Amino acid sequence: MSGCPYFEKRHLYVWTFNLPPTTEGEEDASQAGDNKASKGGIIYGEYLQLDKILSAQVLQSELKADKIHDEHLFIVTHQAYELWFKQILFELDSVRNIFISGHVRDERNMLKVNTRIHRIVRIFSLLVEQFAVMETMTALDFFDFREYLAPASGFQSLQFRILENKIGVPDNLRVPYNRRHYRDNFKGQDSETLFATEQEPTLLKLVEEWLERTPGLEADGFNFWESLEINIFKGLNQEKEKIEKMADSEDKEEMMAHLVSQKELFSSLFDEKRHDHLFSKGERRLSYKALQGALMIYFYREEPRFQVPFQLLTSLMDIDTLMTKWRYNHVCMVHRMIGSKAGTGGSSGYHYLRSTVSDRYKVFVDLFNLATFLVPRHWVPKLNPNVHKFLYMAECCDSSYFSSEDSD
Amino acid sequence: MSGCPYFEKRHLYVWTFNLPPTTEGEEDASQAGDNKASKGGIIYGEYLQLDKILSAQVLQSELKADKIHDEHLFIVTHQAYELWFKQILFELDSVRNIFISGHVRDERNMLKVNTRIHRIVRIFSLLVEQFAVMETMTALDFFDFREYLAPASGFQSLQFRILENKIGVPDNLRVPYNRRHYRDNFKGQDSETLFATEQEPTLLKLVEEWLERTPGLEADGFNFWESLEINIFKGLNQEKEKIEKMADSEDKEEMMAHLVSQKELFSSLFDEKRHDHLFSKGERRLSYKALQGALMIYFYREEPRFQVPFQLLTSLMDIDTLMTKWRYNHVCMVHRMIGSKAGTGGSSGYHYLRSTVSDRYKVFVDLFNLATFLVPRHWVPKLNPNVHKFLYMAECCDSSYFSSEDSD
Amino acid sequence: MSGCPYFEKRHLYVWTFNLPPTTEGEEDASQAGDNKASKGGIIYGEYLQLDKILSAQVLQSELKADKIHDEHLFIVTHQAYELWFKQILFELDSVRNIFISGHVRDERNMLKVNTRIHRIVRIFSLLVEQFAVMETMTALDFFDFREYLAPASGFQSLQFRILENKIGVPDNLRVPYNRRHYRDNFKGQDSETLFATEQEPTLLKLVEEWLERTPGLEADGFNFWESLEINIFKGLNQEKEKIEKMADSEDKEEMMAHLVSQKELFSSLFDEKRHDHLFSKGERRLSYKALQGALMIYFYREEPRFQVPFQLLTSLMDIDTLMTKWRYNHVCMVHRMIGSKAGTGGSSGYHYLRSTVSDRYKVFVDLFNLATFLVPRHWVPKLNPNVHKFLYMAECCDSSYFSSEDSD
Amino acid sequence: MSGCPYFEKRHLYVWTFNLPPTTEGEEDASQAGDNKASKGGIIYGEYLQLDKILSAQVLQSELKADKIHDEHLFIVTHQAYELWFKQILFELDSVRNIFISGHVRDERNMLKVNTRIHRIVRIFSLLVEQFAVMETMTALDFFDFREYLAPASGFQSLQFRILENKIGVPDNLRVPYNRRHYRDNFKGQDSETLFATEQEPTLLKLVEEWLERTPGLEADGFNFWESLEINIFKGLNQEKEKIEKMADSEDKEEMMAHLVSQKELFSSLFDEKRHDHLFSKGERRLSYKALQGALMIYFYREEPRFQVPFQLLTSLMDIDTLMTKWRYNHVCMVHRMIGSKAGTGGSSGYHYLRSTVSDRYKVFVDLFNLATFLVPRHWVPKLNPNVHKFLYMAECCDSSYFSSEDSD
Repeated sequence: MSGCPYFEKRHLYVWTFNLPPTTEGEEDASQAGDNKASKGGIIYGEYLQLDKILSAQVLQSELKADKIHDEHLFIVTHQAYELWFKQILFELDSVRNIFISGHVRDERNMLKVNTRIHRIVRIFSLLVEQFAVMETMTALDFFDFREYLAPASGFQSLQFRILENKIGVPDNLRVPYNRRHYRDNFKGQDSETLFATEQEPTLLKLVEEWLERTPGLEADGFNFWESLEINIFKGLNQEKEKIEKMADSEDKEEMMAHLVSQKELFSSLFDEKRHDHLFSKGERRLSYKALQGALMIYFYREEPRFQVPFQLLTSLMDIDTLMTKWRYNHVCMVHRMIGSKAGTGGSSGYHYLRSTVSDRYKVFVDLFNLATFLVPRHWVPKLNPNVHKFLYMAECCDSSYFSSEDSD
Repeated sequence: MSGCPYFEKRHLYVWTFNLPPTTEGEEDASQAGDNKASKGGIIYGEYLQLDKILSAQVLQSELKADKIHDEHLFIVTHQAYELWFKQILFELDSVRNIFISGHVRDERNMLKVNTRIHRIVRIFSLLVEQFAVMETMTALDFFDFREYLAPASGFQSLQFRILENKIGVPDNLRVPYNRRHYRDNFKGQDSETLFATEQEPTLLKLVEEWLERTPGLEADGFNFWESLEINIFKGLNQEKEKIEKMADSEDKEEMMAHLVSQKELFSSLFDEKRHDHLFSKGERRLSYKALQGALMIYFYREEPRFQVPFQLLTSLMDIDTLMTKWRYNHVCMVHRMIGSKAGTGGSSGYHYLRSTVSDRYKVFVDLFNLATFLVPRHWVPKLNPNVHKFLYMAECCDSSYFSSEDSD
Repeated sequence: MSGCPYFEKRHLYVWTFNLPPTTEGEEDASQAGDNKASKGGIIYGEYLQLDKILSAQVLQSELKADKIHDEHLFIVTHQAYELWFKQILFELDSVRNIFISGHVRDERNMLKVNTRIHRIVRIFSLLVEQFAVMETMTALDFFDFREYLAPASGFQSLQFRILENKIGVPDNLRVPYNRRHYRDNFKGQDSETLFATEQEPTLLKLVEEWLERTPGLEADGFNFWESLEINIFKGLNQEKEKIEKMADSEDKEEMMAHLVSQKELFSSLFDEKRHDHLFSKGERRLSYKALQGALMIYFYREEPRFQVPFQLLTSLMDIDTLMTKWRYNHVCMVHRMIGSKAGTGGSSGYHYLRSTVSDRYKVFVDLFNLATFLVPRHWVPKLNPNVHKFLYMAECCDSSYFSSEDSD
Repeated sequence: MSGCPYFEKRHLYVWTFNLPPTTEGEEDASQAGDNKASKGGIIYGEYLQLDKILSAQVLQSELKADKIHDEHLFIVTHQAYELWFKQILFELDSVRNIFISGHVRDERNMLKVNTRIHRIVRIFSLLVEQFAVMETMTALDFFDFREYLAPASGFQSLQFRILENKIGVPDNLRVPYNRRHYRDNFKGQDSETLFATEQEPTLLKLVEEWLERTPGLEADGFNFWESLEINIFKGLNQEKEKIEKMADSEDKEEMMAHLVSQKELFSSLFDEKRHDHLFSKGERRLSYKALQGALMIYFYREEPRFQVPFQLLTSLMDIDTLMTKWRYNHVCMVHRMIGSKAGTGGSSGYHYLRSTVSDRYKVFVDLFNLATFLVPRHWVPKLNPNVHKFLYMAECCDSSYFSSEDSD
């Protein structure tokens, strides 16, 4: 940026208006600008490359001399989805790079991580809304041109598959597509691209590593996990004693039965072998240590250092939720467009899509399931601000500050 | 479409799934498809021309070796807007063509007109929502790259100006832009395109002509307008008599004052000269006859022939409302991005945009303002279904049925 | 309404403003009103009974001296849901009454039916959005007060169960709740109310009866069903002949196999016994005749008489879709609030709710599945407007016009 | 909470499901619950006081023997607004109390402040959407019952006026209502309540005090303001020198003119007298010191201590924006319902409402306008993490941690 004087570029020209006013005084404020466009430089249509964007709507039905009006909507809607998928991938990659590069250790970068993940959330919200536009097309309108689309299929959206890979939908938990591995439905370069993205560190994996470093987990420090285990079982035992003192009754029996199931529940939480078993089946996705970090952030979310991390965990669940809502809205639209064809033979379209509306595709499912292990606040190990300063002292790294801004 | 057998194209290949299942039985329904993509033909990415769509995001900041992350969002958001503007124009043109070609006289086409106008409504609703994504960018993020945009400006969106023209924002009611005629801010071809669209029949004009033909307006038939005038003034006179019989009181005075103002109000409605005067000032946009048609549709909206026309009038108001909300949301976003700069000199950006959030830009303002002239149901001239059959017998034209479907 | 003079009530007082202006001239238009409130009469708070509405937020946690802030949101959100459920029931009952009373035979009432069903659609869209507010509450916030809610449960929403009943969720297709009939989870009066609503004609049943009367189905008239069957099988046979003439190839085999499955598919459509079988299993919900009517409306939706009926069928699918989205969003929220507790024992909350996101709860599932039976437009039996006038001549009934307006 | 054993209340009963399962094994997971409702305790309808909520819909038209269907929607919509206004006030009061009580000095409370303000944002977003439901009512539907509402008026919403007061819409910037002070349109108790809320510390005032304490403003410390002033004018002078060296040209003149206006602009920023002048006219609302704090948070938003404060400032602008969008949507709805009545006499309804869609009602207008004073990042005074530790060390207060949770 050096070398180009501030005024040459920055303030003379701006986006939605043109500066500066050439006259002072009580002139109508709405007219106080100069028209800079006449002096050369890039203009709106060039900047946005609208020649490409607005020339990409070729109706197959028209090519086949059977122009069907609604095919235009079909194309534009899918192009809008793909544009936004590109934006989501752009944000996702930038966040992954902050983690991969280690910049995440400078906690000044947490705002950026959080903001960009939140932006993905907002985009997905819009994409869920966007089905309302497509739904103005009826099954009959679609039937008129769907023959011309062959063999194109929404399944072939490369960006969406890449997105799933980069967030962390694992290869082996995917529903097969027409009895074949999902990747086998893509050709040459695309198939390789997909394979390559499977090898990259997923957002899930990167978040896992970050969670494993949660301050307070250190065995020789605050030792959150052991303290929590002690507190919980102490609490459960106190409950047990209280119940035992009650007169015999149906209520007492129920409470005791519940106590037993609670003990089992929490025993399972502190049982690393059980975790490994669930992990091997894909029912848990985070490492044991990362789970501990996540629960620690849950319980101490109000500590200054955990406030933004807690927001981040919430936004990750938002993404999972919105992706699953997107899938479900897609199913609903497909049901309307092509029916379910259940029982009479026909297609797997509706059924395939329904099968992907599954917790198997919820990457951060552990963050949801941790809600199972909440305990009363007074069971949570107490922190002493005078001792546990780590919770309100962030780590920063001087050197990379402004440069990290430019290089992401 | 002739010549290509139904099965060759229609049912073998469909959009979101692949047919047919090659085996029967209790196989998992979600896997019951064939992979047709491997057999050649167009696939998703080609169909949508994603090579164009997804290669059109060039960051000016990156070209100038100062890559600013958020410029990507800025580009994608505006491209999404332009994609949808193209779709809106596509729908709008198809509707205008139905009117221009006279196909609208075949009332079978009313569903199509209504559906497409309603689709524009849904798209605009989405576009209003879409600001939520852009608003994840802060003023500081924008400041980092806005210098590189010069002299591009959102005002230069050719499609949006064309849209305004085709709906019917009149040339002479537009707010000037930097003290110049809006068209002077466009160059060469674009300026000519804009001029050309100003010469085409606007949606407003086409709807006006259609309203003027509203059945029931005929002086030698039902003669709605005269009947209405008679009923209203008879009703007002009856009210007057009732009030005159009341004992003197403040209430009586008020009621009488109100009666006088009501008489004035309705006198103005039936005064064609006054209409012409308001029309010449741009305060009314529809012809006197068209206004009568609109009011007739309002009052008899439940008659079979008027049900869809009434929906259409409502959707036209929806478009006006949503465009004005879009403008207002735009203003709000700009305020946040660049401040108002009020008082200290600077830009007209915010003030220019605010000045366009005006009834001057409400094309169908008359449809709103007709609410001023509603009267009690028992003042509305009575219809007799045995006599006035025109209200439940639609006009159709045999010949053009299926062909009109194909040719729009 | 007779007896009260027009001016006494109608124009002196209006909702958002106060009339009339007492002075003329260039006074600021925004101030041109009179303050009528000071003269007595009902005011805003009384009209809306805000004393009731705004005093109904009692926090159980506060009663137990452990006030938890977020319980207030929990209460208000559910109250808002219940308010809107009441509105939905109000609209639904009014529509059902139009059908039950036979007023639907006067086609002037179709606009009203359609508008009110569409209003339900808009309300449900809002209710789906509303989860975004509840999702600002985290699992931890909920955990702090959920103990105090016992044994209240969202399942106990009487209005929602009534709504399901009145639309047409059948008793025997409901997922049991904790192994018990859904109604057994309600006590005394509520259980009786539910039983009573099960006996009333459902929207599904009423729409069915209406569809069975679709003009054009008459065997001694247009005889749509037989004509369609003839056309389809003639078309399929022509395809068969074309395929048979092809040289042997994999493609030919596939096309022939597909032809066979298509024949099976359409044979099933015209096989009343098969319909009855599917009906008995709950896989179809409409009678055979009603299905025919629905398909007729689909194919001839542009005929004047079918335009609004077609919109109605679309809106009925919208309701089904939105209710299922509502259920799914509910599931997502519950997953976040209480986890899935899968595998470790515990609750059925999440699993119960997931099981209700099912096509079993889609009342108008047949309208979706009809998409399976679409055919090319040139196979649809042709209408001749000169002969088949019934498609553009509505039935009206003079006498009840304005009275039906008042009495619904 | 002491005294009541954990199991007695916490886990036996929960909201959406009923615990515990009485059997183990492979039973259908969706049925694994017990029905606790039969054992007594509060149930859903009682908890929500639905007897009050659902009995509060009395149609004035029905009382007057002229039942108009759409009045029900009108009532329910406004009741829903009022329910949500109550929730917004509840959140707002809790936030204000955190500020008033000084708890905000414990930075652990920032998450809570931020979350609750953000919740208000989500609620307002919903309220803006909610107009879509009301808009299913046409002007004609409204006309049928609006006479019965007199003299009730939306202006009389006490909660909305209180909300404006508590956020910080100042008394003297309000648009008068029918030429009278807004408060004079309320009677007795309500008028007193309004007066009382005007005396309470507004959110604006509380945020102002908090901003004034922004770390880094201290004259004997980092001294942000002076450093910034020095940097900016040094930067401007460097630009000036560069420009002066250019050969004479139109561009040079323009750049020099722009430089002058920039100098004026920034001189105004650092001119406390000018600030006081703008403040006295209501064009600025924050104190000079608070403005400095806000700009500091803007520029250093990525520092750990400023991340959540920056989010808070953004959410405050969101509230302003959404309130103004709410007002604008309200205007649009009213225009449709009653027309503008411009020119022909009549009402101030539309014009009054339009006049409130004004920056006068934007409480945090300064936060928007600060965008005017952004500068290139390299002009922002540099921080040295080794010296300026205050930016990553939060202030906490041990004692009040869990108690503050309970007492807000």
